[in-house]
Amino acid sequence: MSLFAASNGGATAVKSHGPGRLASLYSELQSSRLDISLPLPSVLKNSFNVVDSPPSSAAGNPEEIAKLFPNLFGQLSAKLVPALPGSVSLAADKSLKIGVVLSGGQAPGGHNVISGIFDYLQERTKESKLYGFKGGPAGIMKCKYVELSTEFIYPYRNQGGFDMICSGRDKIETPEQFNQAQETAIKLDLDGIVVIGGDDSNTNASLLAEYFRAKNIKTRVIGCPKTIDGDLKCKEIPTSFGFDTACKIYAELIGNVMVDAHSTGKYYHFVRLMGRAASHITLECALQTHPNITIIGEEVAAKKQTLKNVTDYITDIICKRSELGYNYGVVLIPEGLIDFIPEVQQLIAELNEILDHGSVDEAGTWKKKLRSQSQELFELFPKAIQGQLLLERDPHGNVQVAKIETEKMLIQMVETELNKRKQVGAYKGHFSGQSHFFGYEGRCGLPTNFDANYCYALGYAAGVLLHSGKTGLISSVGNLGATVEEWTVGGTALTSLMDVERRHGKFKPVIKKAMVELEGAPFKKFASLRDEWALKNRYVSPGPIQFVGPTANDINHTLILELGAQAA
Amino acid sequence: MSLFAASNGGATAVKSHGPGRLASLYSELQSSRLDISLPLPSVLKNSFNVVDSPPSSAAGNPEEIAKLFPNLFGQLSAKLVPALPGSVSLAADKSLKIGVVLSGGQAPGGHNVISGIFDYLQERTKESKLYGFKGGPAGIMKCKYVELSTEFIYPYRNQGGFDMICSGRDKIETPEQFNQAQETAIKLDLDGIVVIGGDDSNTNASLLAEYFRAKNIKTRVIGCPKTIDGDLKCKEIPTSFGFDTACKIYAELIGNVMVDAHSTGKYYHFVRLMGRAASHITLECALQTHPNITIIGEEVAAKKQTLKNVTDYITDIICKRSELGYNYGVVLIPEGLIDFIPEVQQLIAELNEILDHGSVDEAGTWKKKLRSQSQELFELFPKAIQGQLLLERDPHGNVQVAKIETEKMLIQMVETELNKRKQVGAYKGHFSGQSHFFGYEGRCGLPTNFDANYCYALGYAAGVLLHSGKTGLISSVGNLGATVEEWTVGGTALTSLMDVERRHGKFKPVIKKAMVELEGAPFKKFASLRDEWALKNRYVSPGPIQFVGPTANDINHTLILELGAQAA
Repeated sequence: MSLFAASNGGATAVKSHGPGRLASLYSELQSSRLDISLPLPSVLKNSFNVVDSPPSSAAGNPEEIAKLFPNLFGQLSAKLVPALPGSVSLAADKSLKIGVVLSGGQAPGGHNVISGIFDYLQERTKESKLYGFKGGPAGIMKCKYVELSTEFIYPYRNQGGFDMICSGRDKIETPEQFNQAQETAIKLDLDGIVVIGGDDSNTNASLLAEYFRAKNIKTRVIGCPKTIDGDLKCKEIPTSFGFDTACKIYAELIGNVMVDAHSTGKYYHFVRLMGRAASHITLECALQTHPNITIIGEEVAAKKQTLKNVTDYITDIICKRSELGYNYGVVLIPEGLIDFIPEVQQLIAELNEILDHGSVDEAGTWKKKLRSQSQELFELFPKAIQGQLLLERDPHGNVQVAKIETEKMLIQMVETELNKRKQVGAYKGHFSGQSHFFGYEGRCGLPTNFDANYCYALGYAAGVLLHSGKTGLISSVGNLGATVEEWTVGGTALTSLMDVERRHGKFKPVIKKAMVELEGAPFKKFASLRDEWALKNRYVSPGPIQFVGPTANDINHTLILELGAQAA
Repeated sequence: MSLFAASNGGATAVKSHGPGRLASLYSELQSSRLDISLPLPSVLKNSFNVVDSPPSSAAGNPEEIAKLFPNLFGQLSAKLVPALPGSVSLAADKSLKIGVVLSGGQAPGGHNVISGIFDYLQERTKESKLYGFKGGPAGIMKCKYVELSTEFIYPYRNQGGFDMICSGRDKIETPEQFNQAQETAIKLDLDGIVVIGGDDSNTNASLLAEYFRAKNIKTRVIGCPKTIDGDLKCKEIPTSFGFDTACKIYAELIGNVMVDAHSTGKYYHFVRLMGRAASHITLECALQTHPNITIIGEEVAAKKQTLKNVTDYITDIICKRSELGYNYGVVLIPEGLIDFIPEVQQLIAELNEILDHGSVDEAGTWKKKLRSQSQELFELFPKAIQGQLLLERDPHGNVQVAKIETEKMLIQMVETELNKRKQVGAYKGHFSGQSHFFGYEGRCGLPTNFDANYCYALGYAAGVLLHSGKTGLISSVGNLGATVEEWTVGGTALTSLMDVERRHGKFKPVIKKAMVELEGAPFKKFASLRDEWALKNRYVSPGPIQFVGPTANDINHTLILELGAQAA
């Protein structure tokens, strides 16, 4: 038995929230994944040059972004090309000190990004050091880190989870916090930091890069696109890592539930899927499994649908199916659905306000503070949901949408509507709803071959970018529809992804979340098929993720369709 | 596109509850499973003889079983052996008419049992017919069936679900129902019926076999052991099919959630697992994944634990872990837990009684009808659980345990207890519970290689048993720890598995559910390790089921341990 326990380094004694991994305890499958050799894009396997692309702008409001990032705005993006004969490669005898941090929620593949950075430093530089900041950005601010070694990293290779160094949701925001980050950078003599995170974390990475540049600190900052939600993407970043694995795990379960629904013939399964801001996961799972009913938040918002509209849409299909003899089915709902419904947003905003300035009394007199439309909506909700709407808020003072069991709410609302129709003879079937929430099950699975390879390349590329002195870029691996050998590698200026939002009277830079595009290829394909899926049973059961065999290297539908659309 | 729609046969027009499967719509993995060639035990591949074993008795009260089964009691079991030179084999030119029925809940592999029967008839008899009764035993009584053909069966090979002919929970119980079954047997000129089901369904199969024998009807009846719950097993039947696949699906999810818990460091995941009567699934998942806390219903019952005891056990571990700095963990709970707690059983019995004779009033005066201990317990439950306890009953007048969210109940009870301890300074951690129920996700997955092979052999064996004129046996495939080639094949007298229960003043035959044995090897192994799992983090993530590669032919821990214990 070999224990790969964390050797805590750093100025602060680190209280780990668990021991390191015991590879000796691994399941056979976990073990079998440890030693697979990961393919690299061919450009990374040989000598390459890092070439600059033309100056960039911003996703919106370039003049404001230019003000917010005086040093970085207009940054050149970078692209790796095979080395020209006689060209100068990156100095292999250079010694780098790099820090890496995981930021935000778990996504399958994070450990491989770190492995990729580590292997790059081992293979292409000399006596470099890689520090893993523990517990997310707080680890940078508090200088809590562990020095990563071959032995330390080994048991995490191709494994799910973020537990190698763990993650956190703190942000480097205040002048004091930036100063703390600076102290750490100087103390550890860092040449660079790699921030692995979603839209917020990469915005933060960009601000940190700007800060270091402004302060004339040598530490560079490179981002990596992480989120199972799939809402951090653009032309240069075709997908965020983790989306592929998470969707396949959810789709396996949905497929199983579908076969069960079809076999049993008596249940409607309402499945809520993780993904608060955007409905990419729900859309991808629909494309993989062909459910009878799928609600896409972006469409609900675009069509300004009310909760009643959504309920009626579901109820109408259930009634039609019942006439065909089908009193069963599968319904997919995005976690953030109620966020997309204007009237619900309005109600939640009013509730936030009321709860911010006091509490609610049992007698319900507080309800008088609601506008009449909101009051009606509140009364429309089942009791259990009313309770959830009044639960304590998150640190930002918002209703915790993840705690609202939208799937149960919709079951109850549909049931009520069906009973009404039954009374007037418009529905003769029987309805029995089963609720599911698939979330945590998908964030830490063993990464698919795609995510394992993609993450390794992202990490390796981050190493290259830091080695070549770049800052304020996000690691970018493209041409993902081709074999790994043909993937392209580079870095995209983070400022080019940014727009501004007005908050508390100030402009704040933000990387806009990539929402489901109603004119995009994935949604259009879904929209062209959903009526058929609604009434005919076109269920597909993708089955469990395979690591070897004919399906082992499949990639998700969203990516294929988006790449196809780009190529066309 | 080829549509494998059901060609409805039979006297009654059959209203299918869905179209047949479209293999053209299959996922790549589903398709890849269609054409795999299944290995057969070597005894089935060549000529064999069916030899009888000594007369059998009963699992309990043989004199009562003998009275209930005057024709079948003492039945010889059967065993297949390689044909002796010169011995007479089963007539290959015989033409058989066989019916098959799926009874009860779905379990992965059911389609392969049917494929096994079909292939046996095709390969070893001449011009035989196989009828699939639709919708469970009701299909026998109403003579609703479909004649199964090569084309009809093909898209269901090695696929999950029961939708080839669907299942049902009706029972053949009354004299009129037995008479209906007889009419169907005569009408279709059936040589035999294969009943694929759990303990109840196999008891019913035995009664049907006895009935036909008593009535001098030629139709024989053979059972097959099906249930994901794993509670139909004995020496001759090492496991029921579906258990292996279902547990592996649940263990994949539990493993993922564990890695998430360990990475995030802030949640206790309470996972309720299907399995109402016995806790085999929970025990097997614990052996596969090493959770911090596992509740086994049989142990709770044996130790006469109260709900307070269970809550304290969980809370104690949470407190100890908190002192070690771990404010996270994973807790496994069997679906039927509250059935195992005597005081809860008492409360439910009283509630059943009260609700049977009236309803409950809002004011709560009905509570006075409860005994004081039950009243206290009822008040101890969180409000939501109180509501669930008062929900409508199942057709047998019982509380629908599956609807009681035991995992949420325990989270709330643990939270209350932790708050108490916090007030007296005995607990300083933070607790945040996440609840999960894994059930329907596991009943219809693609069967593992083990279940695919096991089911195929069970079906093939059922064909042999009927071909050789046996009745009242359950298809038995043994030596499952060895390669498929070495598996043994035979049939066990159903009466030998039976005991009697006194119901409404009469003896009723029952196949006793195989409960988790506290002296059995699986529980003993678990019990020897659980304290280590509680405080150290020994999490194992089994990952998704693989169909090819190094882990593709693994079998579950329960089976390995039980086989090992038998061999020892």
